[in-house]
Amino acid sequence: MDGRLSLGEIGERGVIKEIRSMFGYSFDDDDCAAIEYGDMLMLLTTDSINRQSHIPDGVAPAAIGRFLAAVNLSDIAAMGGKPLYFMTALELERDTRIRWVREFETGMKEVLDRYGVKLAGGDTKEGHDLSLAGFAVGEVGKNRVLRRRNCRKGDVIYVTGTVGKNAAAYYMWKKSKGRKWARCMLDVEPRIKEGLFLSGMGATSAIDLSDGLFASVKQLSEASGTGISLDYSKLPIDMAAVCAAESCGVDLMHIACEVGGEYELLVGVPKARAAKLEKEAERRGMALTRIGIARGKGCTIETDKGAEEITSNGYEHFSDTG
Amino acid sequence: MDGRLSLGEIGERGVIKEIRSMFGYSFDDDDCAAIEYGDMLMLLTTDSINRQSHIPDGVAPAAIGRFLAAVNLSDIAAMGGKPLYFMTALELERDTRIRWVREFETGMKEVLDRYGVKLAGGDTKEGHDLSLAGFAVGEVGKNRVLRRRNCRKGDVIYVTGTVGKNAAAYYMWKKSKGRKWARCMLDVEPRIKEGLFLSGMGATSAIDLSDGLFASVKQLSEASGTGISLDYSKLPIDMAAVCAAESCGVDLMHIACEVGGEYELLVGVPKARAAKLEKEAERRGMALTRIGIARGKGCTIETDKGAEEITSNGYEHFSDTG
Repeated sequence: MDGRLSLGEIGERGVIKEIRSMFGYSFDDDDCAAIEYGDMLMLLTTDSINRQSHIPDGVAPAAIGRFLAAVNLSDIAAMGGKPLYFMTALELERDTRIRWVREFETGMKEVLDRYGVKLAGGDTKEGHDLSLAGFAVGEVGKNRVLRRRNCRKGDVIYVTGTVGKNAAAYYMWKKSKGRKWARCMLDVEPRIKEGLFLSGMGATSAIDLSDGLFASVKQLSEASGTGISLDYSKLPIDMAAVCAAESCGVDLMHIACEVGGEYELLVGVPKARAAKLEKEAERRGMALTRIGIARGKGCTIETDKGAEEITSNGYEHFSDTG
Repeated sequence: MDGRLSLGEIGERGVIKEIRSMFGYSFDDDDCAAIEYGDMLMLLTTDSINRQSHIPDGVAPAAIGRFLAAVNLSDIAAMGGKPLYFMTALELERDTRIRWVREFETGMKEVLDRYGVKLAGGDTKEGHDLSLAGFAVGEVGKNRVLRRRNCRKGDVIYVTGTVGKNAAAYYMWKKSKGRKWARCMLDVEPRIKEGLFLSGMGATSAIDLSDGLFASVKQLSEASGTGISLDYSKLPIDMAAVCAAESCGVDLMHIACEVGGEYELLVGVPKARAAKLEKEAERRGMALTRIGIARGKGCTIETDKGAEEITSNGYEHFSDTG
């Protein structure tokens, strides 16, 4: 690759590919690194947010704290793991008020406490802008780990919760700049309970929707080598997405499937285990919807107009194409 | 604490204290978090750098990559540990060239390879400024870990390498803005070999000099409850510090003892083990200098003019007092 190309020209996935190629060993295509220790895998992940890319003006510091914890724990959830420890590297401006820090930490702690995760320390530095990195450590049994590459032809494809809710907030916020929409954009729940349940019930594979449903479907398909077909009529599209599509004049499928910033799980489950899984999920009141199947090659979505190929790559940093 | 106070007013250590007080459990005063697993401790640490605080203009990307890896591994070294895995959360500007990323990663890899550390993954995001967080995982035997609180009255105090070298580069750079000085400022080696050797030889405690020698002495003293007396005439002051003090008209003791950005280890060793340790260090050609002793209360330094109390707190983010 031409070294003069800018990150804006090659995009986030291009940069990651370039970095990986330099290290002379392979990286798994997963939400976390998984390292053997005893009969467990230690899960390591990092996710950072900054004002420019992630934090709309006027959003409360507690919401930012919850978001930073949630996006990191979501990576553990996508491996079927249990999160254990969390660290932060915070770059804050000098004129930040201590009240801001308190509210931010309170929000972060709320999410960590909910999942029994302990803050193990961190680093605080002075910076020009708000830039917040989180690091999470978790664990999962070797025979329970959910990996993208393990999705198999015939697997039933599920999604937790609803799709399009955060994307709806994004479009409403773009239109009105209202603070409540800013808060809703960052309002995500890491699907830890769901990930643990799914890995316990014999799911093969999972990925979170952080880059959008279509992007996640493509990534799961590419890592595993099986095609995936979705049924649009089955998608649990959030009512908010329907409202936002109408209110903002934006295509509903775009809002539901092509915008990042959502943290539900996309999951593959062997067909033989699907019925039992659905029954047990229902018994627990866990929102889990069958939206497709792993089959053939490539990724498609069935609509009224027939099957369409999924081409969107979803949100990508440095890129204008997201 | 009044929530309206800014970070500029309370300083980095004030922020950290405030955050810790919110979590309802105690944090060890160490360079890493140490978590039990089997008969080992897992070491977790994070350190971030950004353009505003750490990276002088014109410094080569490879030097930045080496620095990011080194400052994180240094925390593992200060616990007597072996580093195993490294992750990064990089916030880069959109117009960054891929060549820049390659050179940065090459520098980082150079340091990681030297200590057998594997890159376990990372995150790359678009940001307004260069902001680079590292996250290192290591391990150490439970009975070998070096903790600040374990320094005991009577321990001999050592320092690895020399002091004042990076501080000298900082003053020369301030004067001339020359690129070679910028590079020297960031030229640090994590003392992994030394940390492993010292913990194997029965040292009690260690801390790196990232905030400057005096600040580290005070932190070791506060965590352990013993006073520490240094002998100024024994300090292994780098020749470069002597040159810079003269060339820039700055007090030599300030350069050698009060400026951060150095990554040698300050170590406490029980007196009964000191002779054997020194002999073995000499045999290995390892630079290790006896500079003081743990005794009494408070921290002092003996000079020609008698004993002075150590009052400097060293470099502190958000603060003008460093």
